Amino acid sequence: MTVKACVFDVFGTVVDWRTSVARESAPYLARHGVNATPLGFADAWRRRYQPAMEECRSGRRPWTRLDVLHRENLDGLLRDLGSDPAKIGEAELAEWNNAWRKLDPWPEAVAGLTRLKRNYIIAPLSNGNIALMTAMAKRAGIPWDAILGAEVAQAYKPQPEAYLRTAEVLMIRPDELCLVAAHNGDLAAARKAGLKTAFVTRPTEHGDDQATDLAPSQAWDWVGTDFQDLAGKMGC
Amino acid sequence: MTVKACVFDVFGTVVDWRTSVARESAPYLARHGVNATPLGFADAWRRRYQPAMEECRSGRRPWTRLDVLHRENLDGLLRDLGSDPAKIGEAELAEWNNAWRKLDPWPEAVAGLTRLKRNYIIAPLSNGNIALMTAMAKRAGIPWDAILGAEVAQAYKPQPEAYLRTAEVLMIRPDELCLVAAHNGDLAAARKAGLKTAFVTRPTEHGDDQATDLAPSQAWDWVGTDFQDLAGKMGC
Repeated sequence: MTVKACVFDVFGTVVDWRTSVARESAPYLARHGVNATPLGFADAWRRRYQPAMEECRSGRRPWTRLDVLHRENLDGLLRDLGSDPAKIGEAELAEWNNAWRKLDPWPEAVAGLTRLKRNYIIAPLSNGNIALMTAMAKRAGIPWDAILGAEVAQAYKPQPEAYLRTAEVLMIRPDELCLVAAHNGDLAAARKAGLKTAFVTRPTEHGDDQATDLAPSQAWDWVGTDFQDLAGKMGC
Repeated sequence: MTVKACVFDVFGTVVDWRTSVARESAPYLARHGVNATPLGFADAWRRRYQPAMEECRSGRRPWTRLDVLHRENLDGLLRDLGSDPAKIGEAELAEWNNAWRKLDPWPEAVAGLTRLKRNYIIAPLSNGNIALMTAMAKRAGIPWDAILGAEVAQAYKPQPEAYLRTAEVLMIRPDELCLVAAHNGDLAAARKAGLKTAFVTRPTEHGDDQATDLAPSQAWDWVGTDFQDLAGKMGC
């Protein structure tokens, strides 16, 4: 079993999107009197993520960058909360949408990735687009070897093409590629496509009362409590 | 004039392909008694580079990864030199072809890129494919923020799409993107597409008697003697 590259789910696995989006949204919510708490707003914005991508997966809409979907979801959410996006204005909305580029890594994530980078090519395999992932990594100091994912594959996870085309651009076999994720569903789809799999637990991604993904649902190839633990188990 | 990202030609501009390919090829040439000097072989292999890409640019052939073109060119060159690739064998040829992933940066290139990275997103805009560029950067310690170029754009320079789609995936305007290259022709195509341009001299790319690209052919936006000089001129 020779893994040559580790690719990572990012939202929830590498970075804490929920508290970061809440922090970035708080000043906008206050300034424009939007009827939501910061964490409630972050959760509501994220709830529109899967349905928006499903439009593309189903073929009803061509593949579209996540930055664009996030922005449409922001406008829609504001309208549903009784706030008119037009009154907030283009410049502020564009800046607010960049909240998704300002997500903080989990505390040990960068140190763990730095260890994994010694033995493996490391890259995101996220549904986030290249510009989003590049800006996030630059701000947070995430030491990716390359920026891969949905935009390179032109397919959104969990479509098999998202995993298979990532192996293809790296010119390795699917079983030489390992997906690292805190989500059992993502790993199940990766395994079905022939990838190796590594699970890490992120028990507060959705807050203190999180009920999902607290434990592995299958016998994944590796299981770690976090990236430091995983790095040790993967020989780094 | 606000440049947000600098993208780089790689073969010749960031790395010294000629002496590196010669060094990597020397043991194979000796072992198989190929009728060529290492530098002569490197030059001859490289001479097949543009014609091979031209097949793709012209539409006679779909876009094809440079690793694949390099390998076809290796086999063809060996045949022309009277050596049968089949006798050398698949494993050795594949490893030999990886010479292009083992190119050494010019002496000041990594230090200069590290300075430029402080103020700009830095990425390759090379005709090399993602796997090739990623492996090269990992071996040589080139600190790219992302791996862009022909494979992401699905077009080979100097086609305008190679430049324009690179700005598009970074979600910036063409005039917020600067191409850094040691080749006036590459910069001319980038300027035509609306990019900013920076020329650095690499007077020994083709050896001591190089006659081309010794000076800027147009008034490029920046001109540097090397990446350290350019970093200073670009405010880093």
